Amino acid sequence: MELTIGQYSLVYNMLSFAIASMIFSGVFFVLARDRVAPKYRISLVVSTLVVGIAAYHYLRIFGSWEAAYVLEGGNYLASGKPFNDAYRYVDWLLTVPLLVVELLLVMGLVGAKKEGLITKMVIAAFLMIALGYPGELITDETSVMGMRGLWGFLSTLPFVYIVYTLWNELGVAAAEKEGKTAVLYRNIRLLLLATWGFYPIVYMAPFFGWEGASTQVAIQVGYSIADVLAKAGYGVMIYAIAKSKSEDEGYVIA
Amino acid sequence: MELTIGQYSLVYNMLSFAIASMIFSGVFFVLARDRVAPKYRISLVVSTLVVGIAAYHYLRIFGSWEAAYVLEGGNYLASGKPFNDAYRYVDWLLTVPLLVVELLLVMGLVGAKKEGLITKMVIAAFLMIALGYPGELITDETSVMGMRGLWGFLSTLPFVYIVYTLWNELGVAAAEKEGKTAVLYRNIRLLLLATWGFYPIVYMAPFFGWEGASTQVAIQVGYSIADVLAKAGYGVMIYAIAKSKSEDEGYVIA
Repeated sequence: MELTIGQYSLVYNMLSFAIASMIFSGVFFVLARDRVAPKYRISLVVSTLVVGIAAYHYLRIFGSWEAAYVLEGGNYLASGKPFNDAYRYVDWLLTVPLLVVELLLVMGLVGAKKEGLITKMVIAAFLMIALGYPGELITDETSVMGMRGLWGFLSTLPFVYIVYTLWNELGVAAAEKEGKTAVLYRNIRLLLLATWGFYPIVYMAPFFGWEGASTQVAIQVGYSIADVLAKAGYGVMIYAIAKSKSEDEGYVIA
Repeated sequence: MELTIGQYSLVYNMLSFAIASMIFSGVFFVLARDRVAPKYRISLVVSTLVVGIAAYHYLRIFGSWEAAYVLEGGNYLASGKPFNDAYRYVDWLLTVPLLVVELLLVMGLVGAKKEGLITKMVIAAFLMIALGYPGELITDETSVMGMRGLWGFLSTLPFVYIVYTLWNELGVAAAEKEGKTAVLYRNIRLLLLATWGFYPIVYMAPFFGWEGASTQVAIQVGYSIADVLAKAGYGVMIYAIAKSKSEDEGYVIA
């Protein structure tokens, strides 16, 4: 793999953009915690963990990207050290269950329904990541009918289940509320669909025959943007929902 | 010792997974402290110390793993620098007494019984680690009747004493409570047995004739998972117990 200086730097700068976004959205969630009613603060705590874990992994991915290429004769050539994209899976194994939990917590479901839903969603999220990973390691198959396709299909089952369930729960929650809170519920539903939808498309890149340097660059840039929206952006929306609900319920910042 | 890229990366990624889990469970224990009644907060403080100390040692183990191998001709070969697994013993010397203490504190034992039990458990934990360590350094014995076996046996005496005592105390505590708190006590009892049970099995690996690259990889992966469950996962359960007891006692988050 050979990259131009422009291609290498684009990925480099986008990874750095992700690091900054994750760290400072986390700082925001910590500092703005007391602006929402106490019962919603746990969602901001979970948001902080999500972006913190993501910041940690983006720092590692950044280091791996730097080590994987050397500048030679005006271009970046593979150094021999593999670029470790598997950090993304380790990250998702921790953050995706937390992302689902923070949404369910801010929705204020109660009792057995809450606990049952959290348990089911966390297990599904874990299965989604664990089943996708073996397929991700198979990079030489171009047919959707091979093992990469099979793992991808298995991983899609919990994926569809999670997105479908959250979409429905958010629809119910939006219908129960009015004004700003209802609008925010509908917006986060769209953000969820748009950002989550990006990952299966990247997974299928080899089936579309997308390869070579520009595809690799596009994938890394795409992942960075999707992750910032799905973690930091999503966390900010969770904060907005928590704030709007706190105001509806008469909470005044002390 | 020669490792494939896949084997090397698996350990690398699991050590990184442990680092992220330890750091961000610690962040959670700090941020979620005020969600439990003041008298239970000391348990969350101790949980924070445990995962903080573990994060520190996992960063060192990660660095040692990186330094111990070099990529050559598509495989990872021993670089000559020994992989320093002894960090684990230093870690346990500090964290195991703290793990025992945080459990006894959240159980809300009082007066002389509490102090006596804490003292006995801390001494036993210290003996367990200190007696196991000399045997760990003996890697060339395959018979259980040698010095490794002897140190292992001596270390097992305080191990059994600790697990037996905590098992009983948790049984008594569960019987005194009902509802969610009792269920949590029974669950943490199982978590304790399952995670602690892993360590003596690894200690005995040479006696079973388990050796070679894949055993080493399995041991490191196993240690990482056991440590994450026994420290971060256990801390989250301690938090759940503290929260459930706080609610039983009418504590409302300010």
